[in-house]
Amino acid sequence: MIGTVLTEPIHGEVARTAWADGMLARLPAAPFPETPPARITAAALADLLGYWSASDGPLYRLLATRLGRLADTAELPTGLRLPPERELATVLSVSRNTVAMAYQVLRDEGMADSRQGSGTRIVPHQCTPAGVHRANGFFTRILGTSPVEADLTLATVECAPQVAAALEDPSSVLSAAARRAITATPGYFPYGLPDLRAAIAGMLTTRHDLPTRPEEVIVTTGAQQALDLLIRCEVVAGQPVVTEDPTFPGVLDALHRSGARPVGVPVGDMTRLERALAAHRPPLVYLVPTHQNPVGVSLPLTARRGVLALAKAYPDTVFIDDMTVADLPLTDDPALPLLAALDSCTPNVVTVGSLSKTYWGGLRTGWIRAPQGIIARLASAKAAADLGSTAYQQAIVAALIAGRNDEILKWRADWLRPRCAAITAALRQYLPAWQWACPEGGLSIWARLPGNADAGAFTQAALRKCVAVVPGRLLSATGDADARRHVRLAFVLPPDQLTAAIKTLSAIDLPP
Amino acid sequence: MIGTVLTEPIHGEVARTAWADGMLARLPAAPFPETPPARITAAALADLLGYWSASDGPLYRLLATRLGRLADTAELPTGLRLPPERELATVLSVSRNTVAMAYQVLRDEGMADSRQGSGTRIVPHQCTPAGVHRANGFFTRILGTSPVEADLTLATVECAPQVAAALEDPSSVLSAAARRAITATPGYFPYGLPDLRAAIAGMLTTRHDLPTRPEEVIVTTGAQQALDLLIRCEVVAGQPVVTEDPTFPGVLDALHRSGARPVGVPVGDMTRLERALAAHRPPLVYLVPTHQNPVGVSLPLTARRGVLALAKAYPDTVFIDDMTVADLPLTDDPALPLLAALDSCTPNVVTVGSLSKTYWGGLRTGWIRAPQGIIARLASAKAAADLGSTAYQQAIVAALIAGRNDEILKWRADWLRPRCAAITAALRQYLPAWQWACPEGGLSIWARLPGNADAGAFTQAALRKCVAVVPGRLLSATGDADARRHVRLAFVLPPDQLTAAIKTLSAIDLPP
Repeated sequence: MIGTVLTEPIHGEVARTAWADGMLARLPAAPFPETPPARITAAALADLLGYWSASDGPLYRLLATRLGRLADTAELPTGLRLPPERELATVLSVSRNTVAMAYQVLRDEGMADSRQGSGTRIVPHQCTPAGVHRANGFFTRILGTSPVEADLTLATVECAPQVAAALEDPSSVLSAAARRAITATPGYFPYGLPDLRAAIAGMLTTRHDLPTRPEEVIVTTGAQQALDLLIRCEVVAGQPVVTEDPTFPGVLDALHRSGARPVGVPVGDMTRLERALAAHRPPLVYLVPTHQNPVGVSLPLTARRGVLALAKAYPDTVFIDDMTVADLPLTDDPALPLLAALDSCTPNVVTVGSLSKTYWGGLRTGWIRAPQGIIARLASAKAAADLGSTAYQQAIVAALIAGRNDEILKWRADWLRPRCAAITAALRQYLPAWQWACPEGGLSIWARLPGNADAGAFTQAALRKCVAVVPGRLLSATGDADARRHVRLAFVLPPDQLTAAIKTLSAIDLPP
Repeated sequence: MIGTVLTEPIHGEVARTAWADGMLARLPAAPFPETPPARITAAALADLLGYWSASDGPLYRLLATRLGRLADTAELPTGLRLPPERELATVLSVSRNTVAMAYQVLRDEGMADSRQGSGTRIVPHQCTPAGVHRANGFFTRILGTSPVEADLTLATVECAPQVAAALEDPSSVLSAAARRAITATPGYFPYGLPDLRAAIAGMLTTRHDLPTRPEEVIVTTGAQQALDLLIRCEVVAGQPVVTEDPTFPGVLDALHRSGARPVGVPVGDMTRLERALAAHRPPLVYLVPTHQNPVGVSLPLTARRGVLALAKAYPDTVFIDDMTVADLPLTDDPALPLLAALDSCTPNVVTVGSLSKTYWGGLRTGWIRAPQGIIARLASAKAAADLGSTAYQQAIVAALIAGRNDEILKWRADWLRPRCAAITAALRQYLPAWQWACPEGGLSIWARLPGNADAGAFTQAALRKCVAVVPGRLLSATGDADARRHVRLAFVLPPDQLTAAIKTLSAIDLPP
């Protein structure tokens, strides 16, 4: 039967479409992810393509391979019309012939067809409606294996030496009794290992002036799972969720997959935030008040108090304060309080955090701090999702937080600040016409290209020179026009490589 | 405003109900989890209550605490009517006064109200429709902290000493260069660490005669996440999913949360399986062909070939072969082939596995083996769910699989077989009227109580004697009447404790 579908694609397609139509007819228009779009624009496809040109081999073959992979994963759903050859060629900075030959490869491999007057379309694959999500091209980059010379896209950090030492030799941070106590358990901790919950609660209490009991903490596989669990517990498909625009792309990915509708408000715009709450009554608001990702600025104290007032006015809305980059200050100004630290009687303000940007991403250690009732609900969701995160490492991490947190954060600051200094100096020297705010913290700069240059096309041109940056559209909740003029530049490479990368970018002709 | 809701519950309730009604009106009847039931039966509530009576303190207080927690997590949704006092008292084997006092505590704490003629109801909490899922009481047991003397519910195993030693001292299995190579990466591996993917592929190829390339493997946080990701990728809310009945409760929990409709077919009944496929055309079929959990029997070779034929006849249905307990044989019969090993040209047959029952649950290491296109789609889903599992431990586990798998499995068999021998001997001696099949493998026995005794009520009576068993209803896709006569008995305690526990069970008067 598989054979039948492959040799008779038209038949198979009709059957699937009829079924899919039946499904969609039973689903409401608003709450469900839209019907697959009939077309994709050249700019949107370029964003999905990501690193396509950065491997060895002829360009048309690289392009065809990447398009085929996107069709495999249903990021390019069955029936989708690809952009006209000429338009895609312009956006990708390649010849029209390269695109034409790539489309021909797809047709030869049975992944696409072309008909007079309707262009080139993806033909049926083994994919279900659940796979037809509005995938965010951002994380396909992590999944990709094609290296570039200078990757300014991912804000991943070098493992802190204290963390590497503890992973290599757990006995350096844990007593023999403590180590044996962990493997003596069944190993399932949906709430997190008690020692780690206590260590996180202690850290929030002492370092962040946020009095926290261990019962108010759940351990997650990074902040990404923290956000995914909150979305799965609090949001029904079709509901609006308010985020800053631009924002952390991971939250957009999780929202799109859950069927939620992201609603963006400009970073720091309290009037628009209030208006969005009144208009949409969202179940969830996602904010990065400290060292906002990607902009790098912090919400002032008065605006934080304003958010708290909104949280009190909308008690059915959960407000997330993502503190993942809060411990990465780039100035010596005193730290601003976490939202939850401003008022202990606002149970709908929850705090999400992670060690991925301070200790190491490979730990995959994040947390949610919330009232005990919400934590219980999240733990039930986590039990269904994975029955709990890896147990043994949680004890190592607990010991590091309890014993060496200040030392690690100091090491990270010394690691980070020269990188920020290098990229800002290079931007001033080589790209003086670009606009950006000097980051107060975090790992990235949100830079506006001069004039009305399209950041997606610029990104493609940069990739051809082996420098990768993120086009702003991928960080925008709503594909905001202003975001399309921006790129995100992460500064985690060594300072000299950052300087060289910015110099390379300055040699690119700005697309119109 | 939170205060308003708490002090004016009626007002808050009206507002929430109106909103919830609005949401539900926009949602279709079939694909979405049902409207919260108006009532819950005493038997269903007893299943949710689980270990409630196993702590210290007066029974009415223990009951009230557990009911309050279930309301917190929305497992008892707002508006739900609790069972009449007399009915719940009968099922729980307590006095009516105990239930009456527990309900009074809930009212005193503002979590319930009672009205003339409509019984006791849960009043509004901070909970959203997404939280109103048909939660499976099973995993709330893991989340609970109340110990019992003899826990026969969870099939968790003691950590194998080879595994504990490697976790305590990674240098015993990894060279210094290998250890440094991991922390030198950014640490994000949505597909899994390459070494671990290769080790799993090698193990499937050599030990299970299932030729597998590393590209056909994704590493997950246990089999639970493997199932959750497959469900999230392949199933739309409202779609039917076929499972055996009874089955692994974790898959039922994940299905319920995704809004899928489990459809049960009796274990090993190929006619019913074929009929369910024809009638429901499910996107997913979940099977445990080897040492079925909880029944412990294996699908014969002819039936396995029959499943393969069905997979070919229904190419749009993904068939899951869960091999989590396949490496736990209790006889010396030759192993039966995995479904995917029967035919290399059936891309819709995928294999799910885990080290949780052989190595240790705390590793949280599972996998999916599937064609590369499905793996790519799953990796995108995993990136949105958690960006990848904990990195460092994956290298340790890869070394163990590659170097010491046979030794660990031999150790586990020596650990397991005396336990199986003890429980089967005790059942024959103390409970001769019970019916069960001698398990061919795995960690549990599916035992039928004599006569028409209700297993839920028996479970409650057993808890009062500090022995915990799982009532069959929690493992049934459809609440099958036959399942309600069964309990699942896991045999992971030391042999003498198993014997004592079965002896204790034999002293319980069978409920009518």
